[in-house]
Amino acid sequence: MIRVTIWNEFVHEKEEGSRPQAAYPNGIHMALKEVLGTNEDFQIRTATLEEPDCGLPQSVLDETDVLLWWGHMKHSSVPDDVVNRVAARVLNGMGFIPLHSGHMSRPFMKLMGTTCNLRWRESNDRERLWVTSPGHPIVKGLPTHFEIPDEETYGEYFDIPTPDEVVLIGWFSGGEVFRSGCCFTRGAGRIFYFQPGHETNRTYYIPEVGAVIANAIRWTAPAFTPQFGFDWHASLEDK
Amino acid sequence: MIRVTIWNEFVHEKEEGSRPQAAYPNGIHMALKEVLGTNEDFQIRTATLEEPDCGLPQSVLDETDVLLWWGHMKHSSVPDDVVNRVAARVLNGMGFIPLHSGHMSRPFMKLMGTTCNLRWRESNDRERLWVTSPGHPIVKGLPTHFEIPDEETYGEYFDIPTPDEVVLIGWFSGGEVFRSGCCFTRGAGRIFYFQPGHETNRTYYIPEVGAVIANAIRWTAPAFTPQFGFDWHASLEDK
Amino acid sequence: MIRVTIWNEFVHEKEEGSRPQAAYPNGIHMALKEVLGTNEDFQIRTATLEEPDCGLPQSVLDETDVLLWWGHMKHSSVPDDVVNRVAARVLNGMGFIPLHSGHMSRPFMKLMGTTCNLRWRESNDRERLWVTSPGHPIVKGLPTHFEIPDEETYGEYFDIPTPDEVVLIGWFSGGEVFRSGCCFTRGAGRIFYFQPGHETNRTYYIPEVGAVIANAIRWTAPAFTPQFGFDWHASLEDK
Amino acid sequence: MIRVTIWNEFVHEKEEGSRPQAAYPNGIHMALKEVLGTNEDFQIRTATLEEPDCGLPQSVLDETDVLLWWGHMKHSSVPDDVVNRVAARVLNGMGFIPLHSGHMSRPFMKLMGTTCNLRWRESNDRERLWVTSPGHPIVKGLPTHFEIPDEETYGEYFDIPTPDEVVLIGWFSGGEVFRSGCCFTRGAGRIFYFQPGHETNRTYYIPEVGAVIANAIRWTAPAFTPQFGFDWHASLEDK
Repeated sequence: MIRVTIWNEFVHEKEEGSRPQAAYPNGIHMALKEVLGTNEDFQIRTATLEEPDCGLPQSVLDETDVLLWWGHMKHSSVPDDVVNRVAARVLNGMGFIPLHSGHMSRPFMKLMGTTCNLRWRESNDRERLWVTSPGHPIVKGLPTHFEIPDEETYGEYFDIPTPDEVVLIGWFSGGEVFRSGCCFTRGAGRIFYFQPGHETNRTYYIPEVGAVIANAIRWTAPAFTPQFGFDWHASLEDK
Repeated sequence: MIRVTIWNEFVHEKEEGSRPQAAYPNGIHMALKEVLGTNEDFQIRTATLEEPDCGLPQSVLDETDVLLWWGHMKHSSVPDDVVNRVAARVLNGMGFIPLHSGHMSRPFMKLMGTTCNLRWRESNDRERLWVTSPGHPIVKGLPTHFEIPDEETYGEYFDIPTPDEVVLIGWFSGGEVFRSGCCFTRGAGRIFYFQPGHETNRTYYIPEVGAVIANAIRWTAPAFTPQFGFDWHASLEDK
Repeated sequence: MIRVTIWNEFVHEKEEGSRPQAAYPNGIHMALKEVLGTNEDFQIRTATLEEPDCGLPQSVLDETDVLLWWGHMKHSSVPDDVVNRVAARVLNGMGFIPLHSGHMSRPFMKLMGTTCNLRWRESNDRERLWVTSPGHPIVKGLPTHFEIPDEETYGEYFDIPTPDEVVLIGWFSGGEVFRSGCCFTRGAGRIFYFQPGHETNRTYYIPEVGAVIANAIRWTAPAFTPQFGFDWHASLEDK
Repeated sequence: MIRVTIWNEFVHEKEEGSRPQAAYPNGIHMALKEVLGTNEDFQIRTATLEEPDCGLPQSVLDETDVLLWWGHMKHSSVPDDVVNRVAARVLNGMGFIPLHSGHMSRPFMKLMGTTCNLRWRESNDRERLWVTSPGHPIVKGLPTHFEIPDEETYGEYFDIPTPDEVVLIGWFSGGEVFRSGCCFTRGAGRIFYFQPGHETNRTYYIPEVGAVIANAIRWTAPAFTPQFGFDWHASLEDK
């Protein structure tokens, strides 16, 4: 079993009459849980900003193999200790999957070391995502490309370190391109940034989108518990 | 001075009444020479398929810092010894810039080890190229993006090894994306693949296109003559 | 089940009274089969140079998920059609693990596009291999480093393209270093080059060496049968 | 002219009777200035921890093309605003060269996003550095390998993101290896981490060490002033 924790800011969906509420009445985390829940190898819990410790005390992180992260309005409300705890857990092997506007989440920015900024436009462009690494486990089951009928436009330059692998590049009908599926390794942990999922559209219910996230959970899940830990950097005196 | 050799297949442009002849009456190599000739740090010669040794005897390669390559109909007419000579010279430090349909040139395929195939469509789409590595010497002087009004569509999946850096990604109006500017290092040599330049349009006269090629010549030019040569793999017995 | 084919040149071990014969009386392939055979998820066959089609007709490759390759004296005896068949199968998703002197095997050289040459010395140095990517599936179960008491020295510069990941770097008592465990993706296929295994020592019986190879088989095994095939590069006309 | 700023913590060398003082009586920054001063294309200034703003107010950074950084005892004394200013300037194009124990400097850690930790031992091992990227501008003029007679041992696992290129790997007589010369791109800026330079030995006077640093200054120096700046992430509304 892969122990998955889905973190969601869960603010915008609670605004009465808002488009995010219409798209995701129970919150994006609950939609993701519903979509991913069909995978029998996942054991899923959720966590949100309003919970104590943002729902991510050390005990929860210790029991998490892969952490998904969705947020956009309240990035700065995630306190330092949570950010540091998440980043440290990733370096020790936990998988991490920031989704969509999670590109500006504090744990992702900390792990990347860059601004993680990008160009964007809310215009419900059509997006077409192209597979650029056809044997990668994350694109299992995908055709050569698939579409999202209405999506916020994200465009280059996306200020991230060169990813280890770019498995999907997005084309937007308004004229932009974007590295939409990016793999990184940091320490013992694997990170997959995935661009789709604007809060006003039910994007996470598109089958290919759900398939990518499920594949990414399996790819970022730690292959094993590292033998290293503190010993990594132990003195060499006793060699 | 950077010693540049522009290689062109130079077949299609000689077909009477053809569109390539209309676009490039003296051949693509002469157009490139004209465009690049304004750079005072370049010393340019040309070579074509019909010349003895394809215009690329060892003596010419020995005096070439950077080789540009354009071809599309007659890739298979380039004989093994020329292919091997070019590839070996790249590994020893010569810069190599395959242009457009040069993605299927035999030296590039040999150096990549993959099929170098891609999707394509002749439809005079509009292409917009986005900078994805804003400090790279190859994008010096470029804006965030620039356009080619009419270009053959090249689309992913482009079957190349993961480039060291992708500095430009192309967007096509018909719905495709393409890694249009790709940097590779092989041995002591640097390679830059650049996608624009269909034979039926005067693409190489577009200022940004010429600027990229000039920048790429400077980036792929060897920083020095390697001290290594045969010594690289000398026996270690005399250590 | 992962279908593994172990290819061995199997020439040197048949020389009466030779050190390779003493180390591997039944051939290196049979030693590898014995060592790897304890993994219940592997279904193993072997193939050697002297068999028809080098034991690698298309039918065998089609039923192979991961191909191991050991050779050193007779690289040039492997004919073009076998080389091309193996390389094409890798691009279509088969895992490929060249071992030790397999760095100069023709399929590996073709897939890399470089000379794949290196420095070497037969001196039975002590080698110590250090883990440089602690969460990678290939180092599962390994300590921070492990040793090979007697090994042929392989030294840098190793003329390969920059690997996607270097998971092990070797230290040799005579003063050399070597990128001993290198991951590559080519097309839909994954490649792992692993340096240990000189023919005069029973290196493949060292537990950590066997563990790395078993892990590498699981990592290079295709995650799925690509949906792509010919469709990858189909015309875009029908879009 | 390349405008170089050499930053040094400059604490240990002021301890009376200490070994760093004996090795570098005027401070490591002054030794580096002396060594690098023979390059006529460099315009060099220095800055130290005790100066106001650590000698790195925005005005100095704005006039700096490449920043060298040496520190080991007082990393935590560099305040947040200096760290943030340096990191932001790197993303906007300034070259950055952390030396030796600068692997744990706050700007480098922030830009990497990992712990940047490593194994180490003070034992005056002999180090031999091997070139692993023979055509790279940073190894211009170097032989296949060179030695440092007495150096603090740094060993893997070095917890950094996979470098874009590793141009030097170090071998230590006590049994360790280390990625000693690592290239990174972050935003518009280039970073080169270089391992040699323990404070108790006059390592920076070794010709090959000085040559690598001079080459690295030229390689990390911005190729141009990016046209981007704020425009990178401007709204796309006016497209």
